[in-house]
Amino acid sequence: MYSSPPALERLVQELSKLPSIGRKTARRLAFYLISGDREKMESLASAIMEAKDKLVHCNMCYGFSESEVCPICAHLGRDREILCVVERASDILPFEISGIHKGLYFVLGGVLSPLDGVKPETLHIPELVKRIEQEGIKELILALGSSPEAESTALYIDRILADSQVRRTRLARGIPVGSDLEFIDDVTMLRAFEERVKL
Amino acid sequence: MYSSPPALERLVQELSKLPSIGRKTARRLAFYLISGDREKMESLASAIMEAKDKLVHCNMCYGFSESEVCPICAHLGRDREILCVVERASDILPFEISGIHKGLYFVLGGVLSPLDGVKPETLHIPELVKRIEQEGIKELILALGSSPEAESTALYIDRILADSQVRRTRLARGIPVGSDLEFIDDVTMLRAFEERVKL
Repeated sequence: MYSSPPALERLVQELSKLPSIGRKTARRLAFYLISGDREKMESLASAIMEAKDKLVHCNMCYGFSESEVCPICAHLGRDREILCVVERASDILPFEISGIHKGLYFVLGGVLSPLDGVKPETLHIPELVKRIEQEGIKELILALGSSPEAESTALYIDRILADSQVRRTRLARGIPVGSDLEFIDDVTMLRAFEERVKL
Repeated sequence: MYSSPPALERLVQELSKLPSIGRKTARRLAFYLISGDREKMESLASAIMEAKDKLVHCNMCYGFSESEVCPICAHLGRDREILCVVERASDILPFEISGIHKGLYFVLGGVLSPLDGVKPETLHIPELVKRIEQEGIKELILALGSSPEAESTALYIDRILADSQVRRTRLARGIPVGSDLEFIDDVTMLRAFEERVKL
């Protein structure tokens, strides 16, 4: 039985560990990398190692940063009384692209899932509560996903803050702008109907 | 305007240079890599560098190899009189997986395309001709693609070997096994009809 050269085989295997990259795609990527100018391999490998070595978690929001406190948390022009809570660091980007949120962020690091052993202490929930107490946060925007786990995480946070003065909000659910109604799934339709607003 | 940490930005940029990886996918891959256990970054980067350092072109077939002559060309059990000519090194795999070809391979390195400056000398055509003369090849299977360039490359090779004794063949064109006729494009249908065989 034929097998490719071991170094090629290993590269295909490593690439196919990436999410949404199957074995065939991994093979195509590997052949792209080893064909032609090989400097591209050097620059990809060094970008990976640089990211590995330089990126740390921001001490305040737990997003990715190259410094102890990330540029957003360090920015003096931002509203320090509004905190947007997201599941993952990658969820910060859509807010920043739209430019709608002028406050700070807080990355939970996941959502509660007792069956998988994810408890409040596994996430950054204790740090969130401490920060709200210490920093006089006025509004907490819970921008978590819409999975059952995400919803119950939002409810959990809402409940433990029941005695505090902080205003808790979540993002509106409804029809995405530009969507045809016929393509909307029934759960979204249900939410959009329930949360309909006065014209 | 917000921008991610430079090391993250660079990683996204490098990943988005890969074929079929757009900016959004690159961002998702980058966040996958920097999240959780970072050893996976080390092993991906080292697999890339190992492939860069170890993989060379086989002296005989121009496929990828870790030694001067690849295991297929060095294999004594293979029929050294049948040579299967392919466009790229990655085209060898489907033959080896099916196990149908017992002879050797020859990687052209592309197809003729005078407008892009790809002439016979740019490809390995002179080496192919030399090899046929020197090694007593009996059959040349031209397993090139079906683009106009690939077809004219096959015709070109066929023509320059017109005076030689070597038998030139190409892969049959027709309906792929398991396909419904209604999904067959008209060019394939035309070829399948023209090249129909006696039952």
